[in-house]
Amino acid sequence: MNDDRPQPRKPFRRLLLTGAAGNLGRQLRGPLAAWADVVRVSDIAPLGEVAAHEEASIVDLADRAAVHALLEGVDAVVHLGGISVEAPFDDLLQSNILGLYNVYSAAQKQGVKRIVYASSNHAVGFHPVTEVLGIDAPLRPDCLYGVSKCFGEALSRYYFDRFGLETVCLRIGSSFEAPKNPRMLVTFLSYRDFIELVRCSLFTNRVGHAIVYGVSDNRVKWVDNTKAAFLGFRPQDSSIEFEAMFPVGAPTADLDDPAQSFQGGPFVLAGPME
Amino acid sequence: MNDDRPQPRKPFRRLLLTGAAGNLGRQLRGPLAAWADVVRVSDIAPLGEVAAHEEASIVDLADRAAVHALLEGVDAVVHLGGISVEAPFDDLLQSNILGLYNVYSAAQKQGVKRIVYASSNHAVGFHPVTEVLGIDAPLRPDCLYGVSKCFGEALSRYYFDRFGLETVCLRIGSSFEAPKNPRMLVTFLSYRDFIELVRCSLFTNRVGHAIVYGVSDNRVKWVDNTKAAFLGFRPQDSSIEFEAMFPVGAPTADLDDPAQSFQGGPFVLAGPME
Amino acid sequence: MNDDRPQPRKPFRRLLLTGAAGNLGRQLRGPLAAWADVVRVSDIAPLGEVAAHEEASIVDLADRAAVHALLEGVDAVVHLGGISVEAPFDDLLQSNILGLYNVYSAAQKQGVKRIVYASSNHAVGFHPVTEVLGIDAPLRPDCLYGVSKCFGEALSRYYFDRFGLETVCLRIGSSFEAPKNPRMLVTFLSYRDFIELVRCSLFTNRVGHAIVYGVSDNRVKWVDNTKAAFLGFRPQDSSIEFEAMFPVGAPTADLDDPAQSFQGGPFVLAGPME
Amino acid sequence: MNDDRPQPRKPFRRLLLTGAAGNLGRQLRGPLAAWADVVRVSDIAPLGEVAAHEEASIVDLADRAAVHALLEGVDAVVHLGGISVEAPFDDLLQSNILGLYNVYSAAQKQGVKRIVYASSNHAVGFHPVTEVLGIDAPLRPDCLYGVSKCFGEALSRYYFDRFGLETVCLRIGSSFEAPKNPRMLVTFLSYRDFIELVRCSLFTNRVGHAIVYGVSDNRVKWVDNTKAAFLGFRPQDSSIEFEAMFPVGAPTADLDDPAQSFQGGPFVLAGPME
Amino acid sequence: MNDDRPQPRKPFRRLLLTGAAGNLGRQLRGPLAAWADVVRVSDIAPLGEVAAHEEASIVDLADRAAVHALLEGVDAVVHLGGISVEAPFDDLLQSNILGLYNVYSAAQKQGVKRIVYASSNHAVGFHPVTEVLGIDAPLRPDCLYGVSKCFGEALSRYYFDRFGLETVCLRIGSSFEAPKNPRMLVTFLSYRDFIELVRCSLFTNRVGHAIVYGVSDNRVKWVDNTKAAFLGFRPQDSSIEFEAMFPVGAPTADLDDPAQSFQGGPFVLAGPME
Amino acid sequence: MNDDRPQPRKPFRRLLLTGAAGNLGRQLRGPLAAWADVVRVSDIAPLGEVAAHEEASIVDLADRAAVHALLEGVDAVVHLGGISVEAPFDDLLQSNILGLYNVYSAAQKQGVKRIVYASSNHAVGFHPVTEVLGIDAPLRPDCLYGVSKCFGEALSRYYFDRFGLETVCLRIGSSFEAPKNPRMLVTFLSYRDFIELVRCSLFTNRVGHAIVYGVSDNRVKWVDNTKAAFLGFRPQDSSIEFEAMFPVGAPTADLDDPAQSFQGGPFVLAGPME
Repeated sequence: MNDDRPQPRKPFRRLLLTGAAGNLGRQLRGPLAAWADVVRVSDIAPLGEVAAHEEASIVDLADRAAVHALLEGVDAVVHLGGISVEAPFDDLLQSNILGLYNVYSAAQKQGVKRIVYASSNHAVGFHPVTEVLGIDAPLRPDCLYGVSKCFGEALSRYYFDRFGLETVCLRIGSSFEAPKNPRMLVTFLSYRDFIELVRCSLFTNRVGHAIVYGVSDNRVKWVDNTKAAFLGFRPQDSSIEFEAMFPVGAPTADLDDPAQSFQGGPFVLAGPME
Repeated sequence: MNDDRPQPRKPFRRLLLTGAAGNLGRQLRGPLAAWADVVRVSDIAPLGEVAAHEEASIVDLADRAAVHALLEGVDAVVHLGGISVEAPFDDLLQSNILGLYNVYSAAQKQGVKRIVYASSNHAVGFHPVTEVLGIDAPLRPDCLYGVSKCFGEALSRYYFDRFGLETVCLRIGSSFEAPKNPRMLVTFLSYRDFIELVRCSLFTNRVGHAIVYGVSDNRVKWVDNTKAAFLGFRPQDSSIEFEAMFPVGAPTADLDDPAQSFQGGPFVLAGPME
Repeated sequence: MNDDRPQPRKPFRRLLLTGAAGNLGRQLRGPLAAWADVVRVSDIAPLGEVAAHEEASIVDLADRAAVHALLEGVDAVVHLGGISVEAPFDDLLQSNILGLYNVYSAAQKQGVKRIVYASSNHAVGFHPVTEVLGIDAPLRPDCLYGVSKCFGEALSRYYFDRFGLETVCLRIGSSFEAPKNPRMLVTFLSYRDFIELVRCSLFTNRVGHAIVYGVSDNRVKWVDNTKAAFLGFRPQDSSIEFEAMFPVGAPTADLDDPAQSFQGGPFVLAGPME
Repeated sequence: MNDDRPQPRKPFRRLLLTGAAGNLGRQLRGPLAAWADVVRVSDIAPLGEVAAHEEASIVDLADRAAVHALLEGVDAVVHLGGISVEAPFDDLLQSNILGLYNVYSAAQKQGVKRIVYASSNHAVGFHPVTEVLGIDAPLRPDCLYGVSKCFGEALSRYYFDRFGLETVCLRIGSSFEAPKNPRMLVTFLSYRDFIELVRCSLFTNRVGHAIVYGVSDNRVKWVDNTKAAFLGFRPQDSSIEFEAMFPVGAPTADLDDPAQSFQGGPFVLAGPME
Repeated sequence: MNDDRPQPRKPFRRLLLTGAAGNLGRQLRGPLAAWADVVRVSDIAPLGEVAAHEEASIVDLADRAAVHALLEGVDAVVHLGGISVEAPFDDLLQSNILGLYNVYSAAQKQGVKRIVYASSNHAVGFHPVTEVLGIDAPLRPDCLYGVSKCFGEALSRYYFDRFGLETVCLRIGSSFEAPKNPRMLVTFLSYRDFIELVRCSLFTNRVGHAIVYGVSDNRVKWVDNTKAAFLGFRPQDSSIEFEAMFPVGAPTADLDDPAQSFQGGPFVLAGPME
Repeated sequence: MNDDRPQPRKPFRRLLLTGAAGNLGRQLRGPLAAWADVVRVSDIAPLGEVAAHEEASIVDLADRAAVHALLEGVDAVVHLGGISVEAPFDDLLQSNILGLYNVYSAAQKQGVKRIVYASSNHAVGFHPVTEVLGIDAPLRPDCLYGVSKCFGEALSRYYFDRFGLETVCLRIGSSFEAPKNPRMLVTFLSYRDFIELVRCSLFTNRVGHAIVYGVSDNRVKWVDNTKAAFLGFRPQDSSIEFEAMFPVGAPTADLDDPAQSFQGGPFVLAGPME
């Protein structure tokens, strides 16, 4: 190949970030600049200002041809795209099921080596709050959105077993500036820890098909990443600093309230939507 | 209550059988007559002669309104409908994903109590042939069809956890008159054992969300139903009587042939189709 | 030692059977005759006709001195005594807790080598009917009677770890001539199998502190004795022959009925009594 | 509702502390003041000075009527009462078995929501010192006192499964100002950590029936609370600061000394007492 | 290739049987005739009459050059050679350690595809007789001979992971015409079942590196082959027919007798020899 | 006993350090001075300057008589001797197999109480880098050297079960001044942590037959010492401080490179040597 360009100074030549206009996507655009010569950002929503090292692309994930074009020349993908809350099934079908298939089908065709996939703790949210889940806990989706994430974990497993396309499934908890309610004291993932988790997922030499919980080092734990320690993710933050925001009362009386009894919290009652 | 109608003589008032025109559906129409006053049979293909106790209905599972009508007045469902081999994703999306959602959504609305769901051993077919899988083995789909079955197991789990709608997921092996190749000596499920498995799944008083492998009592075993013994399924048949059909040679040399190394056999190489 | 007596012709010199006047005790008096030169039988109720090889003793297990006398010169004990249904706590306290302590305390003092202890499936009856329990399943007593059996399993464990006094805890299901209701099709233990289970428990050379479920080879299984296979218990009978007594209907609708949902059946609602 | 009373300023309206005159009870009376408007303290021994927010009550736990009166109007209980060392069985029977039943029976009748129950590491003390126990380790009581704690764990499990009355079983190690011997370097629980453990047990929104080891963050560990991390207990102290008190010699030679070989230490030889 | 020879009529072209002059080797020479065109038999002892289809070879396994010659042109090996009882370490070192390395090293060089390796239950004989071992039980050799079998299992694992050379490790119990003592009622493997086990090990299409216990379907079980069911081994015989040879007495009193307490029986006291 | 000698001021009377001239042996000679009155050091290579408290001895471990002399009067052994890299089998046979037998045989005869044995992570190096191994992970040696360490773990287990001779098997990773390549960032064990691990192994009162991984508190973890926490080993160092030495690039493409895929790294391709 006749390639006059100077060799890349950064680890990746081109990374793709989908869902780049969303809450978490916006957190990643900065850090990605240090990891790849070119960062291709995509979303169905406007992407704002585009930096010199970025390629921006408005894409509907359900549009197969567009997705195949989007994956061209990409080394690895951070796939945050699609719907991340409970939604009518037909919407999830388009973005999280068909859309995800389009991403994997295109990635395999284009020779992409790895996808960091935003799964969710809602894939296992119907486990009770009195258990601590390992990464091999049985799937217990707590809403149709959670079911769509179970689909994604199964699809990506298949692409790894069949084609060697590696995936890290991030079962992200609640990643915001700060917890918004007492439950989020348990599921909180700081932005800094989120970015570190993505970094580990991209740079660990081998990941196979991995599952890891995306939570900070909070005091109360419903999940246990021991078996994912090969990723080297060590959260730096904790929701402990936010505990005073939610003064603790006596436990509420109603043992039969699913939103209090299951890890998914209010999501367990959110669906299905019409 | 003043109810002048004669009481039903059979355990179920109305059972729905989807996929009734298929290979396994045809095996069940006879036995179902003994279990329900009315058997509603449906398929996208012609259903043949309709018996007096049957209600026949040609339905595309992707047609939500038609599926909701189909589920009206039904006590329980044996859901064999949809695609049961590797197929292009867009076809699986319609029949096995959207179609299945339509079935569960309608069942929940109509107050159906239980669904016997034809899952498949292809949901776990990427496990090697040198392991014996319990019902809690991690999902390892071996093709996109298998991925669609993983979706179904997750969706039905959700409907049980959320609404108490019970499901037995039958991970059916190879159910034919006789095994067609050496691999099927391991995965063989006789028609008689298949019918018994459906009977157990319908009549066991409580099933919750259960998973069970559909195999006869074959000599070689890749799966172990110990943890599903509460269903009371005891296969009566075995592929041993067919072993002479496939004279055994020395093991083939190629350890790298996935079709020989994984439980899914040739399915592991079948997909994805375009 | 100068011992002119003829050597015993039977394996044991003296066996003690407590609860000998009860339903299961009566089944054992015959077989025990073949296993020991002397069979000491005791109960709080009348013991009927006493055979030549028997020593009969009316004993209240809560009477420590009487129990110590009862254990004198005994090689091994089959302890069926005490209450075997839900009862007011104060009654259980006397017969199943204090009474059991008296038996173990006396046995240890008298150098008894082994006790076959009638525990109960009600020690684990709050597990759901959709699980299959190994012998290491967590304790889930379904009534105060079940709690008293958990006490007995812990007490006997202590006497083994501390003094080497061996115990086999028989978690007996429903041992009658025939099942009395549909649930007993699952928990049925024929008299013949019960006797065989006691025989295995007495004659296996080493048992340590063992737990084993007392059920026949019924079609539906809630328990799994694989880890107790060193006892050599192989049931010969099955409730299958009684299945026709209880015609199966469609599953009942009420998922919230504990008596249908848990292995303990109606026991889960029986206690506590006043 | 027309309720003129000022709303309580503290999370609990009324907490009951049993065993309040004992070593650990005395540690808790101060902290409880901050958690409840009224703290009812009870013991069989004199309770010392009674604070303004306290209600004091001398109660023998074996006195059922007195215990029922004691539980009236109580939100939650910290139950430290009863005997906490090896003792004659008849004493344990009164205080730790009958007494505990009285507490649970009364709590259920009075609508108490939660009990924090002082179990003990002596419920599992016959495990060897070369194992690390999870909260699901099999029961191995090392003395009759330990057997009485096994009874308590089973009884409280029953009340949770049957009535939804929640319990946290604290398997407390050695909670003193400082370790008193080398073994206590492993089992040490500082007073501060003990208080924090009770706090977590009272304030975690849902606990179900939980088991947790009460040990500080000591260097050597025989127990592992990973599966109880939903309680949020993070010890702040460690016996490391006391290690110099017990200069380490070469390991002693006698592998057959039970007091050196089992986690229960000298307790394994303490019982049974007459 | 110009190969005028008629194609082989039997599954294997050439099988090697080592230890062919031993007790079990002699049982196999007949059956092997049906499985291979040529059966190469070897031993350090005289091999008796040599059949037309046999190639006989007196080889000391410690003689590397001789072993490499022995493996030439072989498809698969049944390796029964070496010492099969407790022996001085220096003897085991030559035949079971150096000798085994020679076999594997030569097999790998010669392109042999599979070795059926006579391991032993003495690799796990220091487990107590009150446990039932799966094929993944931790190694607990009960003598130096057992240690040499642990070496063999590790060495063969390495050759599989490194070179794909498959091995089935047969943990053979007591294979004789009939049990010789009460312990052998548990460990008995009939000659017919032994031959069937070797047949399964040779003919199963893929075995990877497998471990399986060689015992008949005896009444008492210390081992459980569930996880090896992919081999299709179903014993036809049982020691039940021999039970009358060993009248059962009361259990012997001495819990501290290792020969009674551990699965290895008298082997646990046999070594080390000088 | 009439013993005029002053009592030893140090915990051990005489410790033996084999392999004292090697990389790790040299690290230990200093610390051992504080733990024993006499430190006997041995190697096959020159031992350098001998301190006043040391006894030096040049010994070939394959020389049985010399090894028996070496073990005389020893309380405990730190056995680092033998070969610690891949080597021709005949060399490993002499030093790591025969040599190790000589050490254990002599230790048992001389009444030595404990051996700290340098096993290796290469005993389990054929596990993939995407797993986290507990101390009970199945053996997966990655080279013949690793196989010799499996032999050592089995041999030492036997000596513990048979004679009560305790061993701690240290599965040492990469113990150097600093990591030498990216893989060693995971397997790094600082000298300080190595010394602490030996200290814990010698001074813990009971160790039975223990296995523990020798790694510092590195960011990426392939192993988990939770079940060995009874040893009290808490690493103080981490390879994090060395991470900058090995700038991370994008993951390499070749999933089929065993040296990248397995925990053993390049060792998996090193053997067998001729």
